[in-house]
Amino acid sequence: MQNFEFLSPTKIIFGKGVEERVGEEVKRYGKKVFLHYGKGSIFKTGLYDRIVRSLKDAGVEYIELGGVQPNPRLSLVREGIQLCRENNVDFILAVGGGSVIDSGKAIAVGVPYNGDVWDFYIGKEDVKEALPIGVVLTIPAAGSEASKSSVITNEDGWYKRSINVDIIRPKFAIMNPELTFTLPPYQTASGAADIMAHIMERYFTNEKGVDLTDRLCEATLKTVIHNVPIVLQKPDDYNARAQIMWASTIAHNDLLSTGRIGDWASHNIEHELSGIYDIAHGAGLAIVFPAWMKYVYKHDVERFVQFATRVWNVDPDFESLERTALEGIERLKRFFKDIGLPTTLAEANIGEDRLEEMATKCTDRGPLGQFVKLYKEDVLNILRSVIR
Amino acid sequence: MQNFEFLSPTKIIFGKGVEERVGEEVKRYGKKVFLHYGKGSIFKTGLYDRIVRSLKDAGVEYIELGGVQPNPRLSLVREGIQLCRENNVDFILAVGGGSVIDSGKAIAVGVPYNGDVWDFYIGKEDVKEALPIGVVLTIPAAGSEASKSSVITNEDGWYKRSINVDIIRPKFAIMNPELTFTLPPYQTASGAADIMAHIMERYFTNEKGVDLTDRLCEATLKTVIHNVPIVLQKPDDYNARAQIMWASTIAHNDLLSTGRIGDWASHNIEHELSGIYDIAHGAGLAIVFPAWMKYVYKHDVERFVQFATRVWNVDPDFESLERTALEGIERLKRFFKDIGLPTTLAEANIGEDRLEEMATKCTDRGPLGQFVKLYKEDVLNILRSVIR
Repeated sequence: MQNFEFLSPTKIIFGKGVEERVGEEVKRYGKKVFLHYGKGSIFKTGLYDRIVRSLKDAGVEYIELGGVQPNPRLSLVREGIQLCRENNVDFILAVGGGSVIDSGKAIAVGVPYNGDVWDFYIGKEDVKEALPIGVVLTIPAAGSEASKSSVITNEDGWYKRSINVDIIRPKFAIMNPELTFTLPPYQTASGAADIMAHIMERYFTNEKGVDLTDRLCEATLKTVIHNVPIVLQKPDDYNARAQIMWASTIAHNDLLSTGRIGDWASHNIEHELSGIYDIAHGAGLAIVFPAWMKYVYKHDVERFVQFATRVWNVDPDFESLERTALEGIERLKRFFKDIGLPTTLAEANIGEDRLEEMATKCTDRGPLGQFVKLYKEDVLNILRSVIR
Repeated sequence: MQNFEFLSPTKIIFGKGVEERVGEEVKRYGKKVFLHYGKGSIFKTGLYDRIVRSLKDAGVEYIELGGVQPNPRLSLVREGIQLCRENNVDFILAVGGGSVIDSGKAIAVGVPYNGDVWDFYIGKEDVKEALPIGVVLTIPAAGSEASKSSVITNEDGWYKRSINVDIIRPKFAIMNPELTFTLPPYQTASGAADIMAHIMERYFTNEKGVDLTDRLCEATLKTVIHNVPIVLQKPDDYNARAQIMWASTIAHNDLLSTGRIGDWASHNIEHELSGIYDIAHGAGLAIVFPAWMKYVYKHDVERFVQFATRVWNVDPDFESLERTALEGIERLKRFFKDIGLPTTLAEANIGEDRLEEMATKCTDRGPLGQFVKLYKEDVLNILRSVIR
């Protein structure tokens, strides 16, 4: 087990109707708020009105910028930074899912910085300052509501890059599972794949003696696996929605990383898919993750056997641990299929023509992954294994 | 699932050698530190010297008060408050286990208060202010290093009472599993029982639709159950010690309470045992908890079946779920026995003469428990069921 530091200071406010408290929470940190959101679903559901009313009741001024799209764009981030500076904004309120929050985080670090915000994402500068951020979550998936990550896509070359720094962890996350009742099945399923991927990236580690985090990972995975089919059947099942929503936070607030080093190759490979083809991140992960597993499982068969038996209830075959390991991977893939996600590139309408380009791009700063190091050829092999 | 707020702001600094960082951490909060510890084991292990050196290197002044005993006493708390006031202390550093930390927390709330600190513990006053607290943990058990609880014993009548308030959550907890290598087997086992009890108090709830916290509870319990026998065999097994130490924090930082209301009757009953007889809290819990379970399991047999099957790997007997439930309770009791803890009052040298007094005292402010409400007669029945 590795030494670690763990700090998850985000205040979670969870349950029915909690969005009514947003004004009172914002008020602790700011007077002039930047209200950031996506493509307008918050108008349809009435959430926008409830938030604006709560801000007004608390005497908080706001300006707003909507239009964040999935795989959030650098151009909108730059526009947001400009707006914040012109209006002396002192707090960022992101209302939406991971894309809106990540865009808000990028704006938060960009406002006090003299250069171009993209510098942080390409590692040219370290983040030193950020405006405080708050979140009203509407999509459980990215875990950005309590994480230290922000992923942004630069349209100039379609580079998808991330920053990871504690200072951008939100001050509070307001999470009402009812707000997720209206999520379409595909988005629900993609979100679940994203949550599961966050856990699995941490699960597949070379570190020994990390039972507690192993078991916490398995517990969170089993919860998602159990509850996703329930909400696909019954979208307004409050308790099932609540389990998934709370799991999205636990999956990515770094509790499940304590004492270990995760892998993250699958995420990096997927970023090329969604960066270029603009597919849902979770859908991309449903394609890449099982393929990655099949490519690397021999590196530590026992760990994959543990995954198969503890997470997927596979009966261990002691005459062939390999078969047990493969059965676990197969069940993961079947689960993704069953909840309506693609597990091949063809199913996501991605052809063969740019595989080489993607493999080159995602390894251009060195090999990927910690569990197993992957070079360009490895990435290409993984992508080729799921062409159809 | 209930609405909840979750905030666990304690920075965890975990691993080999991390106590060397105490000076630099303290310095962020205070200039004049109150160094609080127990009965001198920190001198034997050299921990005291390392801490004092780190404080000096960081340029932090300190005064000190040792002598905290298990079931920490109000008289020492009052002495500490006096000392802090005389020396303008602005930070409390507790070096030890739950007793030292709880005593430090009591001092932290007592210093800025004009009345007597016991007022808080009997509910006469609400805590509004506290000095900041930091911890160097040496005993994994109470979970006080990240919790909002402090339990103090008033020698005048041997009342053991608690406060629960967010403001006393420590700013940081420095946790080096190596510091627990020298814990005697009995203390290791008592600590484990305390950790398990914190989880089980939360586990037995009437709330439905709380899968994620159920599974996180089970994961943490299984980790403790797996690792305690290992460290009893091999006290310097770093990874096994580390799992238990990290589990102690997770068990009691309220992550495992999210969305539910726990029971806590067993803790209240045990407080009478250790309050009067001064036995280890964990040992008292090993006696009380299985007895409580046998007394209440019919209230929700299915929950006890889940406990039996998921935590203890009992094969469910669908012809008799009751038998399955009872087998889970039996395995818990056997586990406590196997790790050297008492499971009857006689084994802890507690006679029958004061059972009535204890039952009266712990129900004098109303019935105990949330899972099942217990009145004086119920407590008496539970205690009588474990006389020998």
